[in-house]
Amino acid sequence: MGVVSLFSVAPEGSITSPKGFRAGGLHCGLKKTARNDLGAIVCEVPAVAAAVYTTNVFQAAPLKVTRESIASGGRLQAVVVNSGNANACTGKQGEADAYAMRAAAADALGLAEHDIAVASTGVIGELLPMDRVSTGIAGLPAVLSAEDDGAEQFCQAILTTDLVKKEVCVRLAVDDREVLIAGAAKGSGMIHPNMATMLAFVTTDAAVEPQALQQLLGATTDVTFNMITVDGDTSTNDMLVAMASGLADNRPLAPGHPDWEAFAAAFRHVCETLAQAIARDGEGATRLVEVTVEGAVTEQSARAIAKTVIGSSLVKSAVFGADANWGRIIAAVGRAGEPVNPETVDIKLGDIVVLSGSRPIPFDEEEALVYLQGDTVTIHVDLHNGKGSATAWGCDLTYDYVRINAAYRT
Amino acid sequence: MGVVSLFSVAPEGSITSPKGFRAGGLHCGLKKTARNDLGAIVCEVPAVAAAVYTTNVFQAAPLKVTRESIASGGRLQAVVVNSGNANACTGKQGEADAYAMRAAAADALGLAEHDIAVASTGVIGELLPMDRVSTGIAGLPAVLSAEDDGAEQFCQAILTTDLVKKEVCVRLAVDDREVLIAGAAKGSGMIHPNMATMLAFVTTDAAVEPQALQQLLGATTDVTFNMITVDGDTSTNDMLVAMASGLADNRPLAPGHPDWEAFAAAFRHVCETLAQAIARDGEGATRLVEVTVEGAVTEQSARAIAKTVIGSSLVKSAVFGADANWGRIIAAVGRAGEPVNPETVDIKLGDIVVLSGSRPIPFDEEEALVYLQGDTVTIHVDLHNGKGSATAWGCDLTYDYVRINAAYRT
Repeated sequence: MGVVSLFSVAPEGSITSPKGFRAGGLHCGLKKTARNDLGAIVCEVPAVAAAVYTTNVFQAAPLKVTRESIASGGRLQAVVVNSGNANACTGKQGEADAYAMRAAAADALGLAEHDIAVASTGVIGELLPMDRVSTGIAGLPAVLSAEDDGAEQFCQAILTTDLVKKEVCVRLAVDDREVLIAGAAKGSGMIHPNMATMLAFVTTDAAVEPQALQQLLGATTDVTFNMITVDGDTSTNDMLVAMASGLADNRPLAPGHPDWEAFAAAFRHVCETLAQAIARDGEGATRLVEVTVEGAVTEQSARAIAKTVIGSSLVKSAVFGADANWGRIIAAVGRAGEPVNPETVDIKLGDIVVLSGSRPIPFDEEEALVYLQGDTVTIHVDLHNGKGSATAWGCDLTYDYVRINAAYRT
Repeated sequence: MGVVSLFSVAPEGSITSPKGFRAGGLHCGLKKTARNDLGAIVCEVPAVAAAVYTTNVFQAAPLKVTRESIASGGRLQAVVVNSGNANACTGKQGEADAYAMRAAAADALGLAEHDIAVASTGVIGELLPMDRVSTGIAGLPAVLSAEDDGAEQFCQAILTTDLVKKEVCVRLAVDDREVLIAGAAKGSGMIHPNMATMLAFVTTDAAVEPQALQQLLGATTDVTFNMITVDGDTSTNDMLVAMASGLADNRPLAPGHPDWEAFAAAFRHVCETLAQAIARDGEGATRLVEVTVEGAVTEQSARAIAKTVIGSSLVKSAVFGADANWGRIIAAVGRAGEPVNPETVDIKLGDIVVLSGSRPIPFDEEEALVYLQGDTVTIHVDLHNGKGSATAWGCDLTYDYVRINAAYRT
């Protein structure tokens, strides 16, 4: 999606492709297996930075520290992330640990503390083993690389129950110079972002006005990361950070710049691709589900309805079973608390019309079964009640979701 | 719960125990197996009636017909219910079928149409096979009985994926006369009632003022049926009907009557028992989960938080796995959108304190495991932020929930 003529996907790109960025990851002992659990993205100059955070009342300690860093000057030169432990609900000691993590990174990387963001993801309510974290951070400079392997190691370091890494890179022209925007994210469970998502990081070498970057980040989050759900649970640690190095040497981007629309479209593509990847790799998921709602009274109403359908356990179970059970879709539409005319609803599964004017349309069950067994299932709802439209992404509800979450902590 | 000194449970009682009520059920061919799928409760006099209905925009046809019946005179003499087919999203033909169901019952039972309520539960979007329904209704008079077997056959007739029937009866004194209140319900899936629940029927021989009955029904629903969730999905067919025959011959009950509080407490006990039974028998459930929230700013806020916790897929999966994962509980509390002081939260699992002042308390994992493997799991959250309290009921999320719902329709 997006206005593809304004930018192009760079399939070989990564978060270190934009000029100025290095990344890396290593295993410091937070995960029981030898997988990476600590990583960093470092910029050779202080990058214009913007961030959005979870709306959960219980915000993890690293969010407070990152917020302070960005507030102090609107710039970041490094983000340090651990997985395996969320440093959430850990009290004063957890806060002290998040500050210590930042101080250790400043020391190791030779940067000011206020130029460093920290993020954590994993189990809630356990203190970070700071000896391992400190030793790990001291080892980060040696593994940082501007090559693809550095990005790869970072992407591995932020995963928890994720099965695959999530990465994307796009290319566009700004002031006739090449600009790259790239992103990396992790997701999997406790995914129902609200004003931010899981951990996601966007790098670009574009020069961007700080306020313009923050506004673009917020607006884009609303239609990308905030439109995915795996299980309706909003994490304590959700954080999305964007860093713009400016090394592409364009005139700083802001609304009014002739290439602003292209940049915004490319930025949205990066966020949407990461959001979809998180939904597709939801815990236990076997397929990506995309719900588009049209004809709602407002865009906000369309979003609420799309998120209700994508979040319905019954709809999600039916998709897992490849069952064309549109009754569950319309029941979810009807309980979203939004204006709906009960007489005018159309529903399609892919291209298969199952409901028209709120009346069942006979369809080929065999064709529906084949469609629903595919890799991606699209549910299209037209309310014929206004101009608002929205798309949400999620996944099916499977035995594996239950298996993973019945035994996550132990 | 309830003020138990004001009434007593009548374990041998059923919906036909209150004076004036007969019930029965039979198999008319809506379910594929030979289980009952059609039933009725009939009163020998027109009973004062009250009802609450689903808030889902897509209300099934029988709700419209029942609403009209009750509106016409505030009384009902019979309720006719089928399972196996919800008669929802079935358009004009579905409405005509619901009216035809009522007309057939009036004919068979020798009653006026406006004294009859109809209800349906089952698959959405398929037309009722009216030949079978009509033949079945004609057979109802022969199976009606004031004995327990009549109630038993009715209770069986309203079940879908339920594993057990849900029934309760209580006894109290009103004007020194014995009054009975009894109830029957079905639940299982698509359970997240809002202003009503699944199908539930309450009978009493008390004389009750019509307005008082409706107000009591609404207020009681808010703290009983509206406080349960199985999967967050609100059905198109939820309906709760109460019928008061008046044959106990007391002075009509209303606020101000000296026995009103006892009647209200007994009525609440009936509704709460049915609601808990629906939660415990949620699709695939292995245990009942009860979440109590205290210290919220208002009762409404406590309800919202309790329902968020009970509805969390991650909390439900953890209970299935007997995992004392309080991090998921606090994460759910924090995303409920209600005022919470992040520094003052206590959490107990049964009597086991796991969080105090928002700080983890070391606990005996073995003891927690044994507790969480029990039949009922109680989660107690004290916010220390006000006087509001509420209790919600639900169940664990299991492989069987996924199995049942991946293949329900086919």
